[in-house]
Order: sequence, then structure tokens, then C-alpha cells
Amino acid sequence: PRSYSVTLLPGDGIGPEVVSVAKDVLSVAGSHEGIEFRFRVMPIGGVAIDSVGVPLPEETLAAAKESDAVLLGAIGGYKWDGNEKHLKPETGLLQLRAGLGVFANLRPAAVLPQLVDSSTLKKEVAEGVDIMVVRELTGGIYFGKPRGFGTNDKGEDTGFNTEVYSASEIDRLARVAFEVARKRRGKLCSVDKANVLEASMLWRKRVTMLASEFSDVQLSHMYVDNAAMQLIRDPKQFDTIVTNNIFGDILSDEASMLTGSIGMLPSASVGESGPGLFEPIHGSAPDIAGQDKANPLATVLSAAMLLRYGLGEEKAAKRIEAAVMETLNRGFRTGDIISTGMTLVGCKRMGEEVLSSI
Amino acid sequence: PRSYSVTLLPGDGIGPEVVSVAKDVLSVAGSHEGIEFRFRVMPIGGVAIDSVGVPLPEETLAAAKESDAVLLGAIGGYKWDGNEKHLKPETGLLQLRAGLGVFANLRPAAVLPQLVDSSTLKKEVAEGVDIMVVRELTGGIYFGKPRGFGTNDKGEDTGFNTEVYSASEIDRLARVAFEVARKRRGKLCSVDKANVLEASMLWRKRVTMLASEFSDVQLSHMYVDNAAMQLIRDPKQFDTIVTNNIFGDILSDEASMLTGSIGMLPSASVGESGPGLFEPIHGSAPDIAGQDKANPLATVLSAAMLLRYGLGEEKAAKRIEAAVMETLNRGFRTGDIISTGMTLVGCKRMGEEVLSSI
Ligand SMILES: CC(C)[C@H](C(=O)O)[C@@H](O)C(=O)O
Ligand SMILES: CC(C)[C@H](C(=O)O)[C@@H](O)C(=O)O
Repeated sequence: PRSYSVTLLPGDGIGPEVVSVAKDVLSVAGSHEGIEFRFRVMPIGGVAIDSVGVPLPEETLAAAKESDAVLLGAIGGYKWDGNEKHLKPETGLLQLRAGLGVFANLRPAAVLPQLVDSSTLKKEVAEGVDIMVVRELTGGIYFGKPRGFGTNDKGEDTGFNTEVYSASEIDRLARVAFEVARKRRGKLCSVDKANVLEASMLWRKRVTMLASEFSDVQLSHMYVDNAAMQLIRDPKQFDTIVTNNIFGDILSDEASMLTGSIGMLPSASVGESGPGLFEPIHGSAPDIAGQDKANPLATVLSAAMLLRYGLGEEKAAKRIEAAVMETLNRGFRTGDIISTGMTLVGCKRMGEEVLSSI
Repeated sequence: PRSYSVTLLPGDGIGPEVVSVAKDVLSVAGSHEGIEFRFRVMPIGGVAIDSVGVPLPEETLAAAKESDAVLLGAIGGYKWDGNEKHLKPETGLLQLRAGLGVFANLRPAAVLPQLVDSSTLKKEVAEGVDIMVVRELTGGIYFGKPRGFGTNDKGEDTGFNTEVYSASEIDRLARVAFEVARKRRGKLCSVDKANVLEASMLWRKRVTMLASEFSDVQLSHMYVDNAAMQLIRDPKQFDTIVTNNIFGDILSDEASMLTGSIGMLPSASVGESGPGLFEPIHGSAPDIAGQDKANPLATVLSAAMLLRYGLGEEKAAKRIEAAVMETLNRGFRTGDIISTGMTLVGCKRMGEEVLSSI
């Protein structure tokens, strides 16, 4: 059988519960397709701070780099919220993204027919929404230098960050986005603030230049404030969106909430080469951690993305996605997506139902 | 009678049509309250570029500074989209904000009972939404230095901007926000990205410190990505939101689209002293310019904010707001907010109906 090594990073809060389900699903789906997994569990985030003293231990990054793909649960919690920057769980996640060089973050936000009522949007607006946000993940204001705290000429405290993009950072991300759009409905909307920011002006220029290499993709540009509006006004106008790190952080979360079921949404982060990073878009939900209430499907669908984008195992990916749909069709729902007439189940049971659907 | 000078900046696209209506409304409402206006019309934006060669002529800024308040229509259009930065209409608007020192931008987003069906949100989610976004307007990444284009060590083009805030910039804005929240429902949510950005860490620290001066206001903090979600999931949880320039640009537009009727939404920008700047939040809508189709109510309601926040003329402000509500109750609607059973009118006629309701 084909054999892959997968680093599991359960992390904090509900992370361990949902990763445990996804691990079982990977194993079973793999066995049907002649795939074998070697799993290695490593600490990240708050648990790593508590046990090792840093949010991304060297051994964790090393293990992740050596493996074929990385599956992350979630990081963070109230406990570490007040920590200084280098001891924040979030810092560990940013270091992991940078360390793996996963510059392209793919975040699908699709309204499933079974869950259209979960959306706070009117049914006719939500129905059929199917957006892919391609977010730049290892550059921009998240990593730009100089950054820090200072004093201005009046002797006052200041805090500052740098939004910076180079041509190649934009180009490599835009190429991924054009490829993604090409395999979808062929429409790419690049979101920036080129009417104000120089970093965005360069962004728009480079994306526009690349368009000639992808003449089958229809490119448009939109200012970020307008995009935030249009996502609510008429989300179906969007197919693929490409944008920078901070705008992508905001817009992908906005887009995901249009579906009303962020417990269902996976993400994939990939680089030029080397292992990809796959994680649900939801957080660590400390308030329900350890109570077997979490929805594991976002992580299960992240495992499907791992198979597709990380390992090129399309058939196994489809097998998992089909099993999730069948489980929903059989009426099983966790608390976050429950509706009248459906069967309320916990995290483990949801996992078992997916396994039995595979 | 009390007499005020108001600088009118009609600007581009539908700007002249909507400002013309608002001017008449100001005059008539004023005359009922013993207020007299001296109006002076000056160029800004694309029309200023075409006629004077710059987006904010010196004479325009001087006139604005000398007056008691400034009413702006809208700026921009396809024609000038490709212009270099110093010749963009947007640059004129940013120069005006900086020149007037209007650091606090108040953007209400309320769902009117008459227009609840305009929202793409389900009725039960949209009903009763009443949010005020207080956005920092003269600092942050919009104005931070260094900014520009460069070359990195690999010889590649770069584009960069600086997000920077000083303690006093945050404090003065937060004070305005606390005061606003106090006069509303007493809840203030400060939005930042303090888990990643140093500028946000200082932001959160200063806002938290100021809270002790406003013990009657309940302060909370939220990350910007989460805020983008929560606005869609449950917008009624918000009363007043305070945030930086770029997050405010995005979130205030998102919040406004929740109402489904951005043709109705005004804004006020105020500083420590000196004239305030009042403008609808919608753009110049070049596609319908000159066709008598624009909704003038956002500008009319901006005139009401001008009276309230700019001149302290609360009674005249209320008079205008009441006239707008009565006009809606009488069933008049422009194309952007039309629904079955209502009377479709153009920009001028809508203005006449408001006048007759005053
Ligand atoms: C936890 C945080 C650092 C992270 C980000 O801002 O990228 C998260 O919001 C995300 O989108 O994955
Ligand atoms: C036109 C543009 C420069 C402006 C901004 O970004 O501030 C606009 O979007 C706004 O919100 O008033």
C-alpha cells in the first residue's frame, strides 16, 4: 500500500477531540483506497506553552517538516490570552505557517443544501453560495518588518506594523488562485485597497499582469470594503476570491459565516513544495472543550483536503466527502447545526456515523 | 436668526444631485428653527482634478476650514480609477479628512422597520439592529509612514505601508466612542487584531485603561475576524463598535450592508474642534449619475448629523429625521429600496416629499 506520514497537532480546547475523529476517518478511508498512514502526535499552542514553554517547540516543527502532511486541530484559550506575544498560542501557529512556507491558504465557504437553514441569510440569498477564498498566509502585515513598540517625537507610546508585499510573493499566490479558479467556475476576484495603499497598488498590478497567462479565467478587482458589503448583498456573485493575509483573515471568516455552519468548514494551506497544513477554520472553543459536543466535520473535511491537496489522493478525498454528506443526509447533527427533526449527536458519535458511511 | 456657514462639496457622480436635495432640506428645516445657512459650493474629487488639476484644491480646503460644517456628496468614478495616487479622487478625500483633523468617524447602521425587507438577512436577525461604528479616520495604515514602492534584496519590486498608532490617537478616539456608547445603550466593543499586531496590542491596552473613566459603559474586545463573523451571526449583540481606520472601513461597510439599504446611511466625521465633515456612506454611483435615480436620503440624514454633531442644533436634526421617517411611512421609495405596494420616485421627487413632511 501507499504509505504517508501525517503529523497530528491536536492543540487546545476541542482540538484533540476533533483531530481524534479525523484520524480514524483518514485511516478507514485510506484502507479502502490502499493507503496506509503513519501518525505522529506533537504539541502546539497552549498545551505546548504549558508543557515545553514555547507555542511551537522545535521538535514539532521538525516533525511537521519531515512528514507528508500536517493536520491541526485548534489553538488558543482564555488561559493564554494575556500572554506576551512570544508566548501566545497564535504565535506558534504563525511560526508553523512560516516554517512550512505554506503561503496559500484555501478556504472554501459553501452552503450545503442540508444546512441552508443554518444561515442567517434569507434562503434565496444563501442557497447555492459556493466561494473559495485564497488568502496569502506567510506575508503582509502579519510578518512585515519593522514592527513593535516605540516612542514618537512627542514622547508618546506607539505600536506599529508593516504591510509589505514583494512581486514574487504576490505572483506565486496569484498563480495558485488562478489555477484554483480555473478548476472551479473560472471567475477570480482580487480584493485589495488599491485606492489607498501602495502595497495594494502593487498587488493589483501584478495580479493584472498574470491574467494574460490565464486567459480562460475571468479576473475582476474589488476594494475590500466593497467586498465586505457584496458578500452580504449577493454572495453568489463570487466564485474564487484572492487577497492578502489580513483582508483574507477578515473576508474568509465573513464568507464562512454566510453558511451559518462554521463547524463544517475546512481549510488547506500549501506552499511551493513540502507538506501542507490542514485545519478547520473554527477556533478551540474552550467553553465546550472535553464535553463531546464539538462538531468534528470541519476537521474531517480538512482531512479530505489533506488527501486532495496534500497527497494527491483524490479518490480517498471524495470518499470522505461523500461519507460526510451521507451522514448529514441520514439526519445526524451536532449541536451547532441542529434543526427540527434531526438527530442530535456528540463529537464521537458523529465520527462513528461518518466511519459507517465510508 | 442663528447663522451658519456650510461648505457644500458635491463631488462626482450622483454627488451633485443628492447634495442639492440635502441643501434644500437644510434650508427649510433651518427656517423652522430660526437657523439661517450661508452655503458655499466648492470642487473636490474627480471634478476638481478635471477643472483645477488636483483632487483637493487649496481653496476648497480653506473654505471648508473657515466654515462651520462641511457636507460632502461623493467622489470618484471609472474615469479617474487608473490615475496615479496624487491624482486620485480618493486622495482628495483623505487630504480633506486630514486637513480638517476629523479623527472620529461615526457610522450608524440601523435597520428601519419600514425597510427591514431590504436586508438579505432573515427578518428575525435583521429586525432591531442598531449599530454605531466609531472609526479612527486620520491615522493608521491610511496615513502611516514610511509608505511607497521599493526594491528588496532580491531586486524585486515591493509595495509597503505602515500601520501605526500613538497613545494619544487611540485615547482621543476611544473617548469619543465611550461618550457615544454612553448616550446609546452603554455597550462598547473595541475591535482589533491584538493576537497578531503590535499596533492592536497598544490599541487594546489604551482602550482598556480608559474604561475606568467610563464605568457606566460596558467594554468588550473582539478580534476583527471574529467581528466580521459576529456581525452576520447575530448583529443585535452590538451597540457601539470602536476600531481603527482600515478595520473600520471594512466593518462599517459590512454593518451597513446588513441593513440592505446603504442609500439610507449617513456619516459624521468630527475632530477636537473645527468644522465636522458629513457625508453619505454610499459612493458616487457613476452608472446612475445624472438620471434622477439616486436616493438622496443618506445625504439628507447626513445633513441631520451635521446639525446634531456639527452645530449642536438637535431640534433641527430631529425635524429632518422625522420628516424622512414620515416620507417613508407615506410609501415613497427610490429604486434601491423599492418594494411591492410602494411608490417609486426619483431623487428630486423624494427631496420634495421630505420638504413637504418637514
Ligand atoms: C489565530 C490567528 C493568528 C489566525 C490568523 O489571524 O491567521 C486565525 O484567525 C486564522 O484565520 O487562522
Ligand atoms: C474612498 C475611500 C478612500 C474611503 C476610505 O477608504 O476611507 C471610503 O471607502 C470610505 O469609507 O469613506
